[in-house]
Amino acid sequence: MATLEIAPKTTVFYGPIISSDTISFYTASPRALVAVNSRGFIDWIEHDVQASQVQRVLKHKINELGLGMVQVILLELEEGEFLMPGFVDTHTHAPQVPNIGTGQEYELLDWLDKVTFPMESRFADEELAQKLYPSIVNRFINAGTTTCCYYGSLHLESTKVLADVVNQSGQRAFIGKCCMDRNSPDNYREPSAAYSIKATIQLVAYIRALKNTLVQPILTPRFAISCTDELLTSLGNLAAADPTLPIQTHISENQSEIEFVKELFPDCTSYADVYHKHGLLGPRTILAHGVHLTEEELILIKTTGAGISHCPTSNFNLRSGMARVADMLDHGIKVGLGTDVSGGYSTSMLTAIQHASMCAKMVALLPPPSTIMPVPGAQFSGKQLNIANLLYLATRGGARLCNLEHCIGSLEPGKSFDALLVTMKPEGGHLDELHTYPTLPPNTQIDRERLEHNLERFLFCGDDRNISKVFVQGRCIGGTAFKARSFSADS
Amino acid sequence: MATLEIAPKTTVFYGPIISSDTISFYTASPRALVAVNSRGFIDWIEHDVQASQVQRVLKHKINELGLGMVQVILLELEEGEFLMPGFVDTHTHAPQVPNIGTGQEYELLDWLDKVTFPMESRFADEELAQKLYPSIVNRFINAGTTTCCYYGSLHLESTKVLADVVNQSGQRAFIGKCCMDRNSPDNYREPSAAYSIKATIQLVAYIRALKNTLVQPILTPRFAISCTDELLTSLGNLAAADPTLPIQTHISENQSEIEFVKELFPDCTSYADVYHKHGLLGPRTILAHGVHLTEEELILIKTTGAGISHCPTSNFNLRSGMARVADMLDHGIKVGLGTDVSGGYSTSMLTAIQHASMCAKMVALLPPPSTIMPVPGAQFSGKQLNIANLLYLATRGGARLCNLEHCIGSLEPGKSFDALLVTMKPEGGHLDELHTYPTLPPNTQIDRERLEHNLERFLFCGDDRNISKVFVQGRCIGGTAFKARSFSADS
Ligand SMILES: [Zn+2]
Ligand SMILES: [Zn+2]
Repeated sequence: MATLEIAPKTTVFYGPIISSDTISFYTASPRALVAVNSRGFIDWIEHDVQASQVQRVLKHKINELGLGMVQVILLELEEGEFLMPGFVDTHTHAPQVPNIGTGQEYELLDWLDKVTFPMESRFADEELAQKLYPSIVNRFINAGTTTCCYYGSLHLESTKVLADVVNQSGQRAFIGKCCMDRNSPDNYREPSAAYSIKATIQLVAYIRALKNTLVQPILTPRFAISCTDELLTSLGNLAAADPTLPIQTHISENQSEIEFVKELFPDCTSYADVYHKHGLLGPRTILAHGVHLTEEELILIKTTGAGISHCPTSNFNLRSGMARVADMLDHGIKVGLGTDVSGGYSTSMLTAIQHASMCAKMVALLPPPSTIMPVPGAQFSGKQLNIANLLYLATRGGARLCNLEHCIGSLEPGKSFDALLVTMKPEGGHLDELHTYPTLPPNTQIDRERLEHNLERFLFCGDDRNISKVFVQGRCIGGTAFKARSFSADS
Repeated sequence: MATLEIAPKTTVFYGPIISSDTISFYTASPRALVAVNSRGFIDWIEHDVQASQVQRVLKHKINELGLGMVQVILLELEEGEFLMPGFVDTHTHAPQVPNIGTGQEYELLDWLDKVTFPMESRFADEELAQKLYPSIVNRFINAGTTTCCYYGSLHLESTKVLADVVNQSGQRAFIGKCCMDRNSPDNYREPSAAYSIKATIQLVAYIRALKNTLVQPILTPRFAISCTDELLTSLGNLAAADPTLPIQTHISENQSEIEFVKELFPDCTSYADVYHKHGLLGPRTILAHGVHLTEEELILIKTTGAGISHCPTSNFNLRSGMARVADMLDHGIKVGLGTDVSGGYSTSMLTAIQHASMCAKMVALLPPPSTIMPVPGAQFSGKQLNIANLLYLATRGGARLCNLEHCIGSLEPGKSFDALLVTMKPEGGHLDELHTYPTLPPNTQIDRERLEHNLERFLFCGDDRNISKVFVQGRCIGGTAFKARSFSADS
């Protein structure tokens, strides 16, 4: 094949791949060729290619697609490795990561006062942000999160630093500064709605000026309690004026919070209605939690096209309750998963997946609350989430929630190559030496079952040691192999 | 100080230590001296020793105790390290470890048929046991489990192999072969009660002949469903004849299981009564799960002095339900934690701690079932488990459940040094670089708070990378430092 220095490069991976097709089905393809072009997009995928046929298929593809002037690099996966879509973390807080694993004893409102606001307020110090955000962002990347919805602190300058750090990291992300002008400590509250809006507009402009299509601004009213009517109205106006601006906020996490919202907004019929009345509920809105949503709210969220970030680790940890994901799905609402650090005690979407499974299993055992109507022909209600469901929520469902399903969330031609190279080697804490599979000639059925097993074991027993490479838009930006390389370059 | 080659050795650790005192209180001592003698027992502990005073205190101790002929080795802990008691895993299944992380889709009885019995039955092959058990036992050790209650398969020979492996590993353990003579597949069932009892007696003799006080046999009727009346009666007789033999079994894990037990034992008033009627419920009995225990059963368990191994990961994972640990504690029942691999998907007691916390938090939100009476002056009911409670359950409470509280479960003079050297360095996936504590002169109060924080972060965000050394009876048998040493010795 022709190799010219100036020619664009196509990287072709050969090995097992996993990809979510729908919420109910995923592809486990033991012998696939995946071609990623020099702009980081997947050009084509061929399934069921025997090792002996790889060169023939490659030549055929090169001729068919007129790739004669393209440099083609073939990368064969090793035994126990597979490719899968990167994780989409649809809800987390960068300045809370230093608190991770602490504050177990509090429920939401106390936890905010005693643990969270004190830590976030320290990010008034831009130098602290410069010192901490690089390792925080790396932590999410190395956990396999290729797209992340970050809440910053309320500080404009430190959140610019976060945007700079993410920009340099190569991660795909939405970044917002918290808007909050009431019901928080004096040293951690914006002086007025106007001030908050001005800072928000400045952050949006700053992030857009980075000219990095991977990094987008997002409007971030912290939650109804910390925003005055004026601030919510202004944010709604901003969102209406700019139809490309997404919105992220919290909803219906904790009973005391819900009561307080009712007091603060007596004219609204529900928590969801607060956002709706202020023009903040629509197809661009990511609502975290929704643990105690009523039927009326589920219908409003579905009707407006908003979606929910399910954060089970946080919901368990802050004693918020167990969100009824099955009911959300049966109501046709978009759902993704979020780590919600440090309400959640893990930056890893693997933990979110495990806890989403546990939460759904327990919810399925409990009687449904009187506030939610059974949906006729319900597909999910009363059932656990299976592996296909969980994989979807952590990848494609998250992409859909962020309105990025057209470009990420699965391995498909035309989409960006946002992917993980997973390894199931024993060093990763797994037990592959225990799997004494008989040596058999390649058999797609058996190999598919092994691959499905490996996926399940990765999702439930894996950690960052099993993530060799993290790719965003075709570029390797993290993982153990990347860290090892960076480390040796240093020494 | 005098150093003779033939002299016994005392190792004195200097640094922060954590230890459970009661279920409600634990010691966090930032500057302690812990002296471990050559037989692996803790001779003495001094708290609040300033660095400048260490030599003086040591000399004083040597004089006071007449240790002149003893070689004293001082080991100073590094920044971010602390010592704590090793974990006591009161319930797990060695031959199920190869299945870890799979079978998410099943509830208990299907999971046994489709996933568990097929794997366990493979241990008819002694060579498989020889191949797999060493890495399985190492996996528990490196997770910080210094005492482990192992179920083997039903096979005598393979369970002897397990005993040999544990014996060589240096871990403290109880090892039993499953007794099961009905309601399991033809290839995984003992042919008669007499056969099962004979094999059990042989295993008990084999383990005792190892002459290792750390490794003890334990009677292991799998659960009521898989044991005939004759088998349970014979096991009860064995237990009565030998008052040093402990007993482990399962109880009230799953609703279908409970129904089946009722059918099989129509003369018994409850699941607990089945074991009681057969002489298997007493102070030496460890009952796994107890998710759906009734008031009558809680009282029976308390009265007989039996205790419960709470296995929250497994209970979430197999959709068994959420055990009411607070009610067990309020009824005065002994409680420890168990990983219950592979019903549980993690060999780490850290995961058990995290999930015990989550389970208790959710149970506290739910209305109490009508089957359990409120205890007057209840201390735990309706509350979450705090860090002191969780630490206790994973260490001292487990020791008490195993009737080993007199020798392990906490760091105290006279007890065996079964301990973990924990490190909170960033390589462990933590974020210590984020903790920008001001540099202050040593201050016991501040240092104690830091230590408490480190404990909380280890319990919730830690993994095996944070466990540098695992000591049992004073001997280092695992941990990252041990693995690194073994590895370099190999190469
Ligand atoms: Zn949040
Ligand atoms: Zn078990």
